[in-house]
Amino acid sequence: MKVLAILYNGYEAATAEPRLLGTVENELGLRSYLESQGHEYIVTSSKEGPDSDFQKHIVDTDILITTPFHPGYLTREVMNKAKNLKVCVTAGVGSDHIDLNAAVERKIQVLEVTGSNVVSVAEQVMMSILLLVRNFVPAHEMIENGGWQVSEIARNAFDLEGKVVGTLGAGRIGYRVLQRLVPFNCKELLYFDYNALPAEAEAAVAARRVQDLKEFVSQCDVITINAPLHEGTLGLINKELLQHFKKGAWLVDTARGAICVAEDVAEALASGQLRGYAGDVWNVQPAPKDHPWRHMKNPLGGGNGMTPHYSGTTLDAQIRYAEGTKAILQNYFEGKPQEPANIIVGVGKYESKAYGQR
Amino acid sequence: MKVLAILYNGYEAATAEPRLLGTVENELGLRSYLESQGHEYIVTSSKEGPDSDFQKHIVDTDILITTPFHPGYLTREVMNKAKNLKVCVTAGVGSDHIDLNAAVERKIQVLEVTGSNVVSVAEQVMMSILLLVRNFVPAHEMIENGGWQVSEIARNAFDLEGKVVGTLGAGRIGYRVLQRLVPFNCKELLYFDYNALPAEAEAAVAARRVQDLKEFVSQCDVITINAPLHEGTLGLINKELLQHFKKGAWLVDTARGAICVAEDVAEALASGQLRGYAGDVWNVQPAPKDHPWRHMKNPLGGGNGMTPHYSGTTLDAQIRYAEGTKAILQNYFEGKPQEPANIIVGVGKYESKAYGQR
Repeated sequence: MKVLAILYNGYEAATAEPRLLGTVENELGLRSYLESQGHEYIVTSSKEGPDSDFQKHIVDTDILITTPFHPGYLTREVMNKAKNLKVCVTAGVGSDHIDLNAAVERKIQVLEVTGSNVVSVAEQVMMSILLLVRNFVPAHEMIENGGWQVSEIARNAFDLEGKVVGTLGAGRIGYRVLQRLVPFNCKELLYFDYNALPAEAEAAVAARRVQDLKEFVSQCDVITINAPLHEGTLGLINKELLQHFKKGAWLVDTARGAICVAEDVAEALASGQLRGYAGDVWNVQPAPKDHPWRHMKNPLGGGNGMTPHYSGTTLDAQIRYAEGTKAILQNYFEGKPQEPANIIVGVGKYESKAYGQR
Repeated sequence: MKVLAILYNGYEAATAEPRLLGTVENELGLRSYLESQGHEYIVTSSKEGPDSDFQKHIVDTDILITTPFHPGYLTREVMNKAKNLKVCVTAGVGSDHIDLNAAVERKIQVLEVTGSNVVSVAEQVMMSILLLVRNFVPAHEMIENGGWQVSEIARNAFDLEGKVVGTLGAGRIGYRVLQRLVPFNCKELLYFDYNALPAEAEAAVAARRVQDLKEFVSQCDVITINAPLHEGTLGLINKELLQHFKKGAWLVDTARGAICVAEDVAEALASGQLRGYAGDVWNVQPAPKDHPWRHMKNPLGGGNGMTPHYSGTTLDAQIRYAEGTKAILQNYFEGKPQEPANIIVGVGKYESKAYGQR
């Protein structure tokens, strides 16, 4: 079989650090395994435009491996050229770069390494909440710039204790965020989700479900988005909904950038409707140099906690998703069943409840 | 009575934000109270050198109010000029800027607002640990600088899960840090302290006490310092002890800067012996423009999470320490007993066990 992996270039970093498994150079550690089984293995970062390696090789690829960090966009059009494609593996979590409806129709399976990033992202959320609420970035920049004016930092620095924090989505990541918030003595923990948490899980984190989205956002000092991108969440955080946020709320999105309307978020931050915005997901990745989220600020010159998309690709996470990808391939080659939680699209049908087909 | 407060200038920030109570402009909110009681109230930021307001007014001041953020250094020499001084109130926590032995001899009381900052600092510690381990600062700088090279960030980004974290000091702040670490599934939580935690408290956070300091530091991936500065902790983290750290450990100091030897820490970071160092306390405050901690980096160009000293002076904390200072003054004027936890030096004797007189 022909296996094609679209990964990102690690350059010197990947040579120096072999644990950077998700790079073109280190090939998810799969080459010797795949070649020993007689398979062909193509690894490339070239994914944009008709002359890219992605477009060239997809026509006779059997198995496609992609990641959320440097996504190869498998549109319906591209899929139509992929005559041999049987399985798409996302080395990580989040398969919104694949047209899932088209995959169902074409009977192409879509699989993820579901557990690989949940802890990494939940930690990133906690870090992002704390650094926004406590006004870290302007404080650190002041040190780098040779300054020392505590009042300029303190005037927009708060404690997380006593605040209302809500997660939009209380699945594998959202729930882990709630667990980590418990000892911070927030005023209240809220969640918005299509499904209620099991009573015991809800009680364990003392979280309250709010079923109306506007009512949910209007009660939160801090909102963290932990939901997949699909038809129901695309552009969900827009100008209209932002008006229902508490004035001066903090927003963290480590899920998918396109859940937020980029310009509307930048405007809300500039006006002070949002006090801060942090996250590492962008509506286009890599983000262009002039993306508004790179330099947007609140009226006091802070409130931007953006990073490139790396939260789920720490060195610890790379071990997990490389091993998980190998396990999925082994199951497939040996005709064994996949872990149910890893199946987004089975042969001809949706399996995951996370995506927007309900 | 004459009451002298040494606070920091807030400038426009203090005018725009009345919750910045700890500034010269907002005077801890004490003026009308003190004047209504017939007291004189002098507030200034001028604290350095023989011509400073501090030196001028200290000679006939009865009550001195200072903060850890912009400390008025009450040395034995200065104290000898302060003929009327009876009470020093630290609006915040940490009275190491006062010569406590001299205060005992002179029968000058030293009081703090003990509970005012413990949550704020514990949160700052959690933020600092996460942003070092997850390599936040270089990631954010990459976004600001127009770049996008995930491998450069990921090569030095880790999860907190599975790491060994130790607190040097398990008092009011250190214990709160341990509580907040519990849901992060660290490999192990350790503490070093003169005193063992009560068995129940120790079990609640599943922390293990290590009694030998070198053994303690050699086991930790992350070390957080939560101890007061005194003779026993001054310069404790020095070149010699740093050699016993795990290679590539992360160190967070939000307690007092002088617990670490500045040059030794900068060298350890530059060599990679430390992977990161963060905190907001400095051996001199304000830190000079050429302080090595402003620009020190690890061999990959990151690992610096320094901020100016503000962790205990969020807007939430300022309300607590302003109210706490007023309560201490009221007790004194009305001859009522002080909260025992707030008394560092009583009349002629140490009261706190936190300082180094044992």
